[in-house]
Amino acid sequence: MARARITIRLKPTVLDTQGAVVKTALHSLGFDGVLDVHMGKSIQLDLEAGVGRSEVEAMCRQLLANPVIEDFEIELTDGANA
Amino acid sequence: MARARITIRLKPTVLDTQGAVVKTALHSLGFDGVLDVHMGKSIQLDLEAGVGRSEVEAMCRQLLANPVIEDFEIELTDGANA
Repeated sequence: MARARITIRLKPTVLDTQGAVVKTALHSLGFDGVLDVHMGKSIQLDLEAGVGRSEVEAMCRQLLANPVIEDFEIELTDGANA
Repeated sequence: MARARITIRLKPTVLDTQGAVVKTALHSLGFDGVLDVHMGKSIQLDLEAGVGRSEVEAMCRQLLANPVIEDFEIELTDGANA
């Protein structure tokens, strides 16, 4: 079985309002060493053997990510076809 | 500047309803090679130099994760104190 880990983040030019709120909350808890917070999604897919990176990229473009405002990174492990 | 990447996932015993919905959606798009989907959060923290793993763990326990139903993984880079 192959496994893909997909990390989805807002593009750097898009305002991360959730991250700004979390940063303020961390400061109010006394964690003053936090300079910035970027929120994102992490999706783990368990895949049949033989599913390759190009198919996972298609899943990201068609459903998992919003390519207008988000970037995605794919990490394949356990015998997936790169 | 140090950087921490935190991945937060539901504990394996907790039902991942969002993942089940995404799996069904991927199948309906024709991606039949998807066996299972696990949804999670990815948080990137930019930190002042000197902030260590124990402090990031405290942030996770106090605010970022729900330790009752979620596990978290911390990956420190760029000169953070392990």
